[in-house]
Amino acid sequence: MDIGFVGLGGMGRGMAANLVKAGHRVRVWNRSPGPAEALRAEGAEPVSRPEDAMQGEAVLSILADDTATRAVFLDGGALDRAAKGLVHVSMGTLSTAFVQEFAALHRDRGLGYVAAPVFGRTDVAAAGKLNILAAGDPAAIDRVQPLLDAMGQKTWRLGDDPVRANVVKIAGNFMIAAAIEAMGEAVALGRGHGIPAGDLLEVMTNTLFAAPVYKGYGGIIVEERYDPAAFKLTLGLKDVRLALAAGEAAHVPLPLASLLRDGFLEAIAHGDADRDWAALAKVAARRAGLE
Amino acid sequence: MDIGFVGLGGMGRGMAANLVKAGHRVRVWNRSPGPAEALRAEGAEPVSRPEDAMQGEAVLSILADDTATRAVFLDGGALDRAAKGLVHVSMGTLSTAFVQEFAALHRDRGLGYVAAPVFGRTDVAAAGKLNILAAGDPAAIDRVQPLLDAMGQKTWRLGDDPVRANVVKIAGNFMIAAAIEAMGEAVALGRGHGIPAGDLLEVMTNTLFAAPVYKGYGGIIVEERYDPAAFKLTLGLKDVRLALAAGEAAHVPLPLASLLRDGFLEAIAHGDADRDWAALAKVAARRAGLE
Amino acid sequence: MDIGFVGLGGMGRGMAANLVKAGHRVRVWNRSPGPAEALRAEGAEPVSRPEDAMQGEAVLSILADDTATRAVFLDGGALDRAAKGLVHVSMGTLSTAFVQEFAALHRDRGLGYVAAPVFGRTDVAAAGKLNILAAGDPAAIDRVQPLLDAMGQKTWRLGDDPVRANVVKIAGNFMIAAAIEAMGEAVALGRGHGIPAGDLLEVMTNTLFAAPVYKGYGGIIVEERYDPAAFKLTLGLKDVRLALAAGEAAHVPLPLASLLRDGFLEAIAHGDADRDWAALAKVAARRAGLE
Amino acid sequence: MDIGFVGLGGMGRGMAANLVKAGHRVRVWNRSPGPAEALRAEGAEPVSRPEDAMQGEAVLSILADDTATRAVFLDGGALDRAAKGLVHVSMGTLSTAFVQEFAALHRDRGLGYVAAPVFGRTDVAAAGKLNILAAGDPAAIDRVQPLLDAMGQKTWRLGDDPVRANVVKIAGNFMIAAAIEAMGEAVALGRGHGIPAGDLLEVMTNTLFAAPVYKGYGGIIVEERYDPAAFKLTLGLKDVRLALAAGEAAHVPLPLASLLRDGFLEAIAHGDADRDWAALAKVAARRAGLE
Repeated sequence: MDIGFVGLGGMGRGMAANLVKAGHRVRVWNRSPGPAEALRAEGAEPVSRPEDAMQGEAVLSILADDTATRAVFLDGGALDRAAKGLVHVSMGTLSTAFVQEFAALHRDRGLGYVAAPVFGRTDVAAAGKLNILAAGDPAAIDRVQPLLDAMGQKTWRLGDDPVRANVVKIAGNFMIAAAIEAMGEAVALGRGHGIPAGDLLEVMTNTLFAAPVYKGYGGIIVEERYDPAAFKLTLGLKDVRLALAAGEAAHVPLPLASLLRDGFLEAIAHGDADRDWAALAKVAARRAGLE
Repeated sequence: MDIGFVGLGGMGRGMAANLVKAGHRVRVWNRSPGPAEALRAEGAEPVSRPEDAMQGEAVLSILADDTATRAVFLDGGALDRAAKGLVHVSMGTLSTAFVQEFAALHRDRGLGYVAAPVFGRTDVAAAGKLNILAAGDPAAIDRVQPLLDAMGQKTWRLGDDPVRANVVKIAGNFMIAAAIEAMGEAVALGRGHGIPAGDLLEVMTNTLFAAPVYKGYGGIIVEERYDPAAFKLTLGLKDVRLALAAGEAAHVPLPLASLLRDGFLEAIAHGDADRDWAALAKVAARRAGLE
Repeated sequence: MDIGFVGLGGMGRGMAANLVKAGHRVRVWNRSPGPAEALRAEGAEPVSRPEDAMQGEAVLSILADDTATRAVFLDGGALDRAAKGLVHVSMGTLSTAFVQEFAALHRDRGLGYVAAPVFGRTDVAAAGKLNILAAGDPAAIDRVQPLLDAMGQKTWRLGDDPVRANVVKIAGNFMIAAAIEAMGEAVALGRGHGIPAGDLLEVMTNTLFAAPVYKGYGGIIVEERYDPAAFKLTLGLKDVRLALAAGEAAHVPLPLASLLRDGFLEAIAHGDADRDWAALAKVAARRAGLE
Repeated sequence: MDIGFVGLGGMGRGMAANLVKAGHRVRVWNRSPGPAEALRAEGAEPVSRPEDAMQGEAVLSILADDTATRAVFLDGGALDRAAKGLVHVSMGTLSTAFVQEFAALHRDRGLGYVAAPVFGRTDVAAAGKLNILAAGDPAAIDRVQPLLDAMGQKTWRLGDDPVRANVVKIAGNFMIAAAIEAMGEAVALGRGHGIPAGDLLEVMTNTLFAAPVYKGYGGIIVEERYDPAAFKLTLGLKDVRLALAAGEAAHVPLPLASLLRDGFLEAIAHGDADRDWAALAKVAARRAGLE
């Protein structure tokens, strides 16, 4: 297919490379030109404006947040200059309010809109093994399915309303943060009784909680390996804030998300803004006087 | 070995049967005589008083809580009549304060004390596949290791102080309740945006959260299969209370445990005391007006 | 003085009337013309555009929130057409982020900006007995002090930075909501033990808590007099959200505000959006199965 | 009247002195004899055993907690040796569970039991200006009313069931702790925006929150005057724990009390166990990185 890719951060780079590898023509755009040039060697075609990446059958985008997405596609008028019938596969973690507005703007211009946020970090993206959460017009998803297949191990279809995919993505990140908090408190409880973090989490992550999330973040907590961040704490706060906002929109109280938000703020107040979000565990320790 | 087994509830029955099967002589005692008689057919020897089960090399016990344990071993003086050198393998989920007191009473009488609470429900106990958390005098644990091997798939050794095994057990149950709460809130968030619980949890439990705890309780939540309870909500509240008490003893705040406690109370106030503790998810739904 | 007044809701009406009564020339503007016309009889001069109220020495405004304030003063360009040297006395409960932006826009245009939110409801406003929280350039406050004196019993000066007055206002509303929550939970605890709400709160509000906030909201809770609302629950949620946002801006965790936010959402989910924010007490009762 | 007084701590001393002053014959007992001897000069009669203070028409007691009360009246058999028809006016802050048990033990022995906990600190006790919360058999209260009048400015009658007076007392202390927390968070929010604690609380405690609780604890927070403690933080934790237990007994979730409990534990973990319970405000500041 003739497609574009917008946003070549840690995730986007690997995803775009996999699309090239799968034989698609991929025009790539990034705010800073370096990453686009780097992909030229692999067969991608760097372009100089976002709208240049929107002249084929589909454009895929993965940008930091609502603000970045708005800046790239709306503020400069790129959306107005997209090719007729283009399908936009929007893969970032965006707020439900913005997705509703953004999808409507596509509809108004005769463009397709598929929400397709992903589970998986940069290494998973590079390996083409992402779990992709897709929602939107089924026909549009069908058209871009080959693209999704090039990037992910599985596409989870979540219905016609694009917002749904974003809600599930947000809920997933909320659940990860909740798991980190639970481990952080459990570890603090153990340490308060003389049990090393590693002893406690070794049991948990090899029995009841033998899941990637627990093993991965559990390891970070045990080794206090918060630098460099695999996922920055400020991004974690952003996603919990998205969960709270999505809850508020549907008047769903999320007391555990509230607790997580307060913990992230406390971590930031103590200098951990740029550390891995597993540093939430440091908050539980500090509260118990264990730091 | 020549041993006794005290407490033939859902868990104890399977555990005692496995000990018999492994070739040990097992004297069994239970408050109500039925379960002991039922085990006679498999080769166990019912006895009429707890102390009668304490005349061999070891006694294993698994009773509901501190109160039941105190009633059986202390109030009637059974502990005073135990055989010299007996090792007591205490497998219930007990408070840290009681374990400290109870272990000291054994030491004073020249008896061994091994704390060995377990992860796994009745079916796992019956299959001899429990995960056993053991702490206490290493020599004593070594002596009873064949017994533990007959009941579990693995023994996790957690040090010399018996309390440690109980803290890890309590921390594990706290983490399970936290996972239930996280799923409950995530499902409420999803439902608030029109996403069926099953759609949301199918993604989670097959990707990031592909662990027994999430699959098991997730299934209960999706199917609203809270009756009959695999683990009663009131027992869940008891264990969270144990976590809070263990935290308080070491001045470790556990805000997530506090949140769970409030949720369990709310569930009880709405008639779910005897349902499965996954009914915590109903609380999140009710708060959002989704019931 | 020659002044304007923008925003003639429940609060603004009484405040503007008191300014007229104090002998000032008051040009009044309101989105819907009714309230302005009603004030004509008392001596005010209705004008047809916001900027018409900004041609004297000062303009006072009290609008619902950031959005309404932005719509009236910025979107239509009114601020660009204000008289040279005008001082804007901004009395609404606005977010700290917006106040910073708004004050800067005034500075850029050579206009004065005084933040002056108030404590007191409509009856207090009508009686000219408001407590006014003022922050901004001291010389500007001095100039408008006679206006503040006409509306309030006391002006509390909180420094040069306008944001400070808004933070104190937001903190005050947070503290009121906290007091309501404390009463709501205390009443639920009492009711759970057979003590009528009135018996419990009569003691509290005549002893330790003999303060207007407790007497006022306590009375509403006891009599379940949530309709009509003196202050709508959705406005309470808005103000708690402002507190959370102000906390987030300075990375100050506010766990009690988080708890209040969740409670307000739960109230809205159960149909109490338009009731008095003291209906937070219904949430505590419902959680305990007392409704 | 011919009465006894048991427990001459900071509160009891002033209360017993006022009873002597009012002309009653007062036999006084205290665990350590010093305070009883000190009261001899004022006309009290020190006795050597608790039961010696229980030979008149009434005995009043105010001891630290359930444990101390149990030790003095039950463990040594004092209750069994009380004079026929004696009325016990129990003024300590006791748990609802213990009050139920304790009142029944009195009833079984033909003794009267009036629960009469108080609001007011040592200076108020010395001045005879306590607010007394009385519950129990109305005839019994009538008989001891002259005693209550000698110690308090007002007796609040709360019904026939003694537990009610304790629940109201516990609810009151919960509400005080909630007010401290609200001030602590509000002050942290203000400080995060450059507003000194004194500026913020001066406004609050002279306007909406012009009540003794806010003025008193607000002053301590502003001046960071946590030593010596007027009311120790560990006692505050005890009372919040009583509130949580009373809530649990009636399945009333108290999320604000849970939050307070976690805060007190965090304060203890950071060395503030023996400081005034207003040091809860230090927790809010520390979480925001303001210490």
